[in-house]
Amino acid sequence: MKLAVTLALAATAMAAALPAAAQFQKPEDAVKYRQSVMTVQNFHLGRIGAMANGRVPFDAKVVQEHAAVLETVTKLAWVGYGVETEKIKSRSKPEIWMDAAKFKQAQDTMMGEVTKLNAVAKTGNLDQIKASFGNVAGSCKACHDAFRE
Amino acid sequence: MKLAVTLALAATAMAAALPAAAQFQKPEDAVKYRQSVMTVQNFHLGRIGAMANGRVPFDAKVVQEHAAVLETVTKLAWVGYGVETEKIKSRSKPEIWMDAAKFKQAQDTMMGEVTKLNAVAKTGNLDQIKASFGNVAGSCKACHDAFRE
Repeated sequence: MKLAVTLALAATAMAAALPAAAQFQKPEDAVKYRQSVMTVQNFHLGRIGAMANGRVPFDAKVVQEHAAVLETVTKLAWVGYGVETEKIKSRSKPEIWMDAAKFKQAQDTMMGEVTKLNAVAKTGNLDQIKASFGNVAGSCKACHDAFRE
Repeated sequence: MKLAVTLALAATAMAAALPAAAQFQKPEDAVKYRQSVMTVQNFHLGRIGAMANGRVPFDAKVVQEHAAVLETVTKLAWVGYGVETEKIKSRSKPEIWMDAAKFKQAQDTMMGEVTKLNAVAKTGNLDQIKASFGNVAGSCKACHDAFRE
């Protein structure tokens, strides 16, 4: 039993330590993955934005659905930024790898704002949703301004 | 109060009835969205497959994480198959729109298998995960065989 636990812990540690590169067959796949995640994020945030901006009738339930998806997918893209992807053609700036701490901070900021939006969406309060949507969109823009050509 | 409820119901009905086309700025965006969703699905299912096939050490927690993401994202792609996308260049066959009932059935089959995989992942039973992974992969293949060039 003790051995089983030890092996299980070792396996967990190995998986946790699995470098990003090991998860993709080739670096291009990692770039395609992270770009795909952002396409999905963009759609769901955009649907919330359409209601926040009054272009589409407000529907609290629909906002909740999009916000929940957004929170799930916003956790995903980062694994696609392994160092092995730095030389693959994309709009990513070298600052992503040169200033990893700042990039991580931008990730954390966005994740925090998306988590707040998902919480606010559950209240169904349109004014709060509008404000929170603006904060999420701002966190996207700040990261793109700093780390995207 | 009665008016507010009526308006709320009307808004809900409108949003529910919102055609796929209205959710995307142009049909190309819908195609890009559905392709992006499938890229994300492919990655997460692939990570489970790597463990099911023994290429990566089994880690029940990691399988659970991927299976949960997979269940969320598997719900998403279908909105990207609006009729307005039929003429946009992609590998989608016209049968998607000509035999919508069969396409819907293929979606439901995959969704069912993915939901089962997410449930099985929570048990941490590798044999069951292997079997369920096979069923999900089979549902992907069946749909691609029927509806993708």
